[in-house]
Amino acid sequence: MIALDVMGGDYAPGPIIQGALQAAHSVPVLLVGPQDIIKRELYKLDPLWERLSITIHHAPDIITMAEEPVQAVRNKKFSSLVQAVMCVKEGRATGVISAGNSGALMAAALFILGREEQYERPAIISFLPNYLGTKLLALDLGANTECRPGHLYQFAHMGVLHAQKVLGIERPRVGLLSNGHEDSKGSLLVKETFGLLKQSSLNFVGNVEPYGIFSGKVDLVVCDGFSGNVLLKTMESVFSMTRFWLEQMPLPDEKTRIWRDSFIEKTNHYVDSRWQGGALLLGVKGTVVVCHGSSDARTIEHALYLAQKYFQPEIKTGSTQRSFSGIVNE
Amino acid sequence: MIALDVMGGDYAPGPIIQGALQAAHSVPVLLVGPQDIIKRELYKLDPLWERLSITIHHAPDIITMAEEPVQAVRNKKFSSLVQAVMCVKEGRATGVISAGNSGALMAAALFILGREEQYERPAIISFLPNYLGTKLLALDLGANTECRPGHLYQFAHMGVLHAQKVLGIERPRVGLLSNGHEDSKGSLLVKETFGLLKQSSLNFVGNVEPYGIFSGKVDLVVCDGFSGNVLLKTMESVFSMTRFWLEQMPLPDEKTRIWRDSFIEKTNHYVDSRWQGGALLLGVKGTVVVCHGSSDARTIEHALYLAQKYFQPEIKTGSTQRSFSGIVNE
Repeated sequence: MIALDVMGGDYAPGPIIQGALQAAHSVPVLLVGPQDIIKRELYKLDPLWERLSITIHHAPDIITMAEEPVQAVRNKKFSSLVQAVMCVKEGRATGVISAGNSGALMAAALFILGREEQYERPAIISFLPNYLGTKLLALDLGANTECRPGHLYQFAHMGVLHAQKVLGIERPRVGLLSNGHEDSKGSLLVKETFGLLKQSSLNFVGNVEPYGIFSGKVDLVVCDGFSGNVLLKTMESVFSMTRFWLEQMPLPDEKTRIWRDSFIEKTNHYVDSRWQGGALLLGVKGTVVVCHGSSDARTIEHALYLAQKYFQPEIKTGSTQRSFSGIVNE
Repeated sequence: MIALDVMGGDYAPGPIIQGALQAAHSVPVLLVGPQDIIKRELYKLDPLWERLSITIHHAPDIITMAEEPVQAVRNKKFSSLVQAVMCVKEGRATGVISAGNSGALMAAALFILGREEQYERPAIISFLPNYLGTKLLALDLGANTECRPGHLYQFAHMGVLHAQKVLGIERPRVGLLSNGHEDSKGSLLVKETFGLLKQSSLNFVGNVEPYGIFSGKVDLVVCDGFSGNVLLKTMESVFSMTRFWLEQMPLPDEKTRIWRDSFIEKTNHYVDSRWQGGALLLGVKGTVVVCHGSSDARTIEHALYLAQKYFQPEIKTGSTQRSFSGIVNE
């Protein structure tokens, strides 16, 4: 069962609950939020919802997007976000999803679930597409706006373990996001991290620019949460802009329309976060999926599949042990 | 006459000289680099080049992409890059273009041409596209990988003056690149800059995410050179990736091919740096155009038009005075 923060997200609760209805045929969902609102929405969207594997956990309070994360989590114990994380802690759910205040989700995950001991900071990881049509991973995509070189070094290690698991590559090629592919390029943070990664046992290929990332030079990109967030959101919005332009341009005939729509449909699966579901918060003791504030029903539906897929306790234990020795040995 | 660093760029000197040949019918070009190499290339590309408005300035040395910028500029006085900037200082050219080591170009511009007194740091500014098909400006796109809030504050002011000139908007809407549009979002740098811009007399609309930028919420985006570089290069490479996918997908007929090619052609003009020519270095005493390392002949051709267009000494003086009082009054 996956706990879903019903009140998190720019368009909550409608599309969040709709997403749960869409996924509930294969993923049992625990809807967390104000009981009356949830029930009203459920009956509105699907009067027969009770036949589905949907449970309600009442949480009367709401954390908004603009709230200071740590304060919000401390003061609002009965918010849908905090309660959803509590459900994982208490064993009522195997994972949690929120499209709400991502800082608050991270804080709640840290305070309530705790971090994996070998990592100082959790980080958000997700897939990026490349030219070749294969996938790569990138972290941190927004959990930490301020990072030190040691954090990025740890992100590289936790990212590699995740890449081994989800990409099935034994020695994933690790790149460091920079403003040039030359060794000398980068901010002070990048330059110091470069030195650390160069000396590590990882398959570190050096600095990468966005060109290198999207052309398939790496399997994993390491960056601080601020630039990672810019990278991810720029990718999504440029793709979305291109799609908009494709849809605006007058079509000569029906054949071209079919071709265009098929192109959009195919590429959506690579690029658009709504089809990816969300990103995983690595480095905490539990499965936590962070979704965009702008998530729609499809995003939430896919986030539920994702959370279900990544809850594999036996693999989690294995990876924790390996990552720990990995860092200690270097 | 525009001085062109013939040896700067990943594919130099061939495409650089080809670009000069393409623009020379309307922009007089001063080719700066090793005389024998330049002549050989010119005769190879256009045996009748001497009919064009092309002059050669001999500079035997080369600064490579990987060199430490400040050292390179200090040690290589007779490099094509340093000599090209010197040509502006000595009045032999009205502007300079290089697709070489951008750090070295900035250092040379600072040491040789000097900075405009009211600004502590120069910044790279260029156009970005948006959904609406209009343009906006963004700075800094890569000149400063480390910035303090005061620098970003000054970038906003120099950017606004440039926007007034090139976009013709009296009070351009200024946004600050962040990892969320809420006031509370951002790195420490962004948070402090937010406070400064909020109190300024500029038309500051607050934090913007890439979504906000590309949806047309702002006329000018302010960011540090590292994230700005990520923003710009991600935009370009995602667009280029989409174009690649468009070209890979099998076509049903000739009509669809024409439609697709016309789409690519149209959007290229918005998005691709090769059609934009390059970016302008603001805050130095002279017209300096920074091109991508990957510049091809078309980039250089357009960079020459750009450098020619922005050399308007009377406007430059006007803008300097206005920007100075703008900062002092606040």
